[in-house]
Amino acid sequence: MTADETQAAEIGALAVMVAYDGSLFAGFARQPGQRTVQGELEQALSIALRRPVEVVGAGRTDAGVHARGQVVSLPWSGDIDLALTARSLNALVGEGISVSSIRRAKPGFSARFDALGREYRYRIVQGPTPPLFLRRFVWWVKRPLDVERMRQAGAMFVGEHDFKSFCVTESAEGKRTVRRVDAVEIAEEEHLGEACLVVRVTGNAFLHSMVRVMVGTLVEVGAGRQKSEWVAEALDACDRTAAGPTAPAEGLTLWGVSYPDEVWLREG
Amino acid sequence: MTADETQAAEIGALAVMVAYDGSLFAGFARQPGQRTVQGELEQALSIALRRPVEVVGAGRTDAGVHARGQVVSLPWSGDIDLALTARSLNALVGEGISVSSIRRAKPGFSARFDALGREYRYRIVQGPTPPLFLRRFVWWVKRPLDVERMRQAGAMFVGEHDFKSFCVTESAEGKRTVRRVDAVEIAEEEHLGEACLVVRVTGNAFLHSMVRVMVGTLVEVGAGRQKSEWVAEALDACDRTAAGPTAPAEGLTLWGVSYPDEVWLREG
Repeated sequence: MTADETQAAEIGALAVMVAYDGSLFAGFARQPGQRTVQGELEQALSIALRRPVEVVGAGRTDAGVHARGQVVSLPWSGDIDLALTARSLNALVGEGISVSSIRRAKPGFSARFDALGREYRYRIVQGPTPPLFLRRFVWWVKRPLDVERMRQAGAMFVGEHDFKSFCVTESAEGKRTVRRVDAVEIAEEEHLGEACLVVRVTGNAFLHSMVRVMVGTLVEVGAGRQKSEWVAEALDACDRTAAGPTAPAEGLTLWGVSYPDEVWLREG
Repeated sequence: MTADETQAAEIGALAVMVAYDGSLFAGFARQPGQRTVQGELEQALSIALRRPVEVVGAGRTDAGVHARGQVVSLPWSGDIDLALTARSLNALVGEGISVSSIRRAKPGFSARFDALGREYRYRIVQGPTPPLFLRRFVWWVKRPLDVERMRQAGAMFVGEHDFKSFCVTESAEGKRTVRRVDAVEIAEEEHLGEACLVVRVTGNAFLHSMVRVMVGTLVEVGAGRQKSEWVAEALDACDRTAAGPTAPAEGLTLWGVSYPDEVWLREG
């Protein structure tokens, strides 16, 4: 190990990859008197690392929204057994959170600001039969949906646009609302024996409730209540009332977050 | 419609296809003071059909065991709107049950005794990371499992055998314990973003806890604590203590039940 590498191994950060069942939390962000993902993780990390810990999350998911690949960061110096710490965290957190891995990152690493891109997936079960095993992880839409129309409409989101119509109005006040969406793909999948539609949205960053308003709008198109071109009109309007309703939180999962390779420190 | 068909449409039976989340029930079979699948379905059917109803289930699943394709039967004469009745049932049953369809069957149809075959699926998540979205539907085995060894061992179950070693001892007292297993397949699948092993077992009929003891035995082999041939030895022994432990209920799902085509009455 060179002097530089020793330095890097001693002053740096940790990135913790975490999944959670949003139905058991009042959202990601710490709030006094509520069970939140951030609160629960910080408590477990403080015990496992034997010092007070505050984390930064890649995405501040709302109450009810799930995560498969949320990433949180914290500054960290010194030696650490990453696999052992992950096991300790899993023993310390309560039901509904699972730590899949921990990585060492460069000094100053922020799970939020260093992220290159994020992927969200939104699941819909359509038809008259209520979802069973998937009921906590999907939006049940009884009407049949025209998936081809939804794909055409979804393609209109791709690119750099002002998404002011597609976010919580108050959250957009005086802020830049331009975002880049890289892909909107709609796949028919089967999980636990139940068919569902999965809307996969990737982009650099997302406004508050943006994916849920996008999906609510796509479902209006799929159900035949609006034409595909409505998406382009809603984008142009820059007004929340021009887009569709906000799809329910339980269908949404923060699937994964990507970072440039340079942020990671080599292990051991 | 011929006279015979009118007769058949008026005197016959109904088959109700039902899925349930076993974690919310004290098993399938009705028990006083407990929430059971049979109890809940009979209550909903009695309201929807406006007369007392008792049903027969294709498989009497234990507490904690799930079903995707359980079938229950009841005698039924007269007209009925099958789709409307299914919707009513879904509105009447509580959380964790879903009726997917209802079919008309010939007079005297029994979901249990007319069944040709049954398929069970057992899900296992292996490795150090605890399952999250799948946690209620899998057995978490921390040790790595050798799937090839499990497949070799599983093949030894195929055929007609005395499964006395593979069922609850008291349930086998004085009863015939020979059953035919048609296939044991082990697939690597991904559900809700989490990898799992799925053991699919098909056969004509199953003894009490038979699939769970089979899976408990296969996991002993997969974890390297027993050799594959142990399955054949355990079958030969005709003694419950010769086989492995009973795998937990929550990993098991009654996947589907098959019937000869002749049992169904043509609709309309």
